[in-house]
Amino acid sequence: MEHVVNYTYDELNVGDTATMVREVTDKDVQIFAFNSGDLNPIHLDEEYAAQHKFGKRVAHGMWVGSLLSALMATKLPGPGGFYLSQDLKFKNPVFLGDTLTVKVEVAQKKRRNIVEFDCSVTNQDGDLVVKGVANIMIGNEKVEWPKPQVPEVSVL
Amino acid sequence: MEHVVNYTYDELNVGDTATMVREVTDKDVQIFAFNSGDLNPIHLDEEYAAQHKFGKRVAHGMWVGSLLSALMATKLPGPGGFYLSQDLKFKNPVFLGDTLTVKVEVAQKKRRNIVEFDCSVTNQDGDLVVKGVANIMIGNEKVEWPKPQVPEVSVL
Repeated sequence: MEHVVNYTYDELNVGDTATMVREVTDKDVQIFAFNSGDLNPIHLDEEYAAQHKFGKRVAHGMWVGSLLSALMATKLPGPGGFYLSQDLKFKNPVFLGDTLTVKVEVAQKKRRNIVEFDCSVTNQDGDLVVKGVANIMIGNEKVEWPKPQVPEVSVL
Repeated sequence: MEHVVNYTYDELNVGDTATMVREVTDKDVQIFAFNSGDLNPIHLDEEYAAQHKFGKRVAHGMWVGSLLSALMATKLPGPGGFYLSQDLKFKNPVFLGDTLTVKVEVAQKKRRNIVEFDCSVTNQDGDLVVKGVANIMIGNEKVEWPKPQVPEVSVL
């Protein structure tokens, strides 16, 4: 059985990184629109998007941000901490079919067990699409727990 | 047919606000976990959550943030802009069954058609759960477009 494991504050070092790669699908965009209520036609309507600057539908910026949150929650630092803040700068659009590389890096170990992470998401052309900074208060206890399963989510 | 309509830069005034109310359901949390890949057991596993500070499962902070994005994209300022940045401070946990009031307010009209929005989410007890600031570059053209429909999303 797969487990989620954390890094404690003491185990983290400036420069530690984690990455993941994810392709952007229409299903991702539809589900995020449903889940958040963000029905902006730039994400959902080809005809509308064709008339706007980017010429085609773009993924929601906050969905891209959610991938950063997911990477931190499951890999670095993993579970057991408290997510204090996240800032996001949306630098370039993300399109359906893009392949995103999501990266977090330990930037600074602060007082009170707070760790600052540099966050970035780049596309398959190497363009930076999202950058940001997160602060997480990290526990001193080792956490190891069976990775939860989520049911398949379907767009009907 | 319902439409999404924007406010142009000229139509916005400091102090303009929009709000929406949303109840937090288990389905919201399951779908966000699936969509983002954030399988932190604090969101999904009752037994794990019972051992941690808050004593029960909490919703994902970035999902709460996505409600702010949705409110801005569909109501104030509405479609047609460019989402430049979002920062989020997670002040208190959000639990399943909470009723959230999501609010955005025009804080500042800047140069280059950029508008700064103060963002907040409070729960049914009046506790601030998320606060933040967004910057959106706003168009000068009026946008009115049929509100996209998204298919029902099901957790199987």
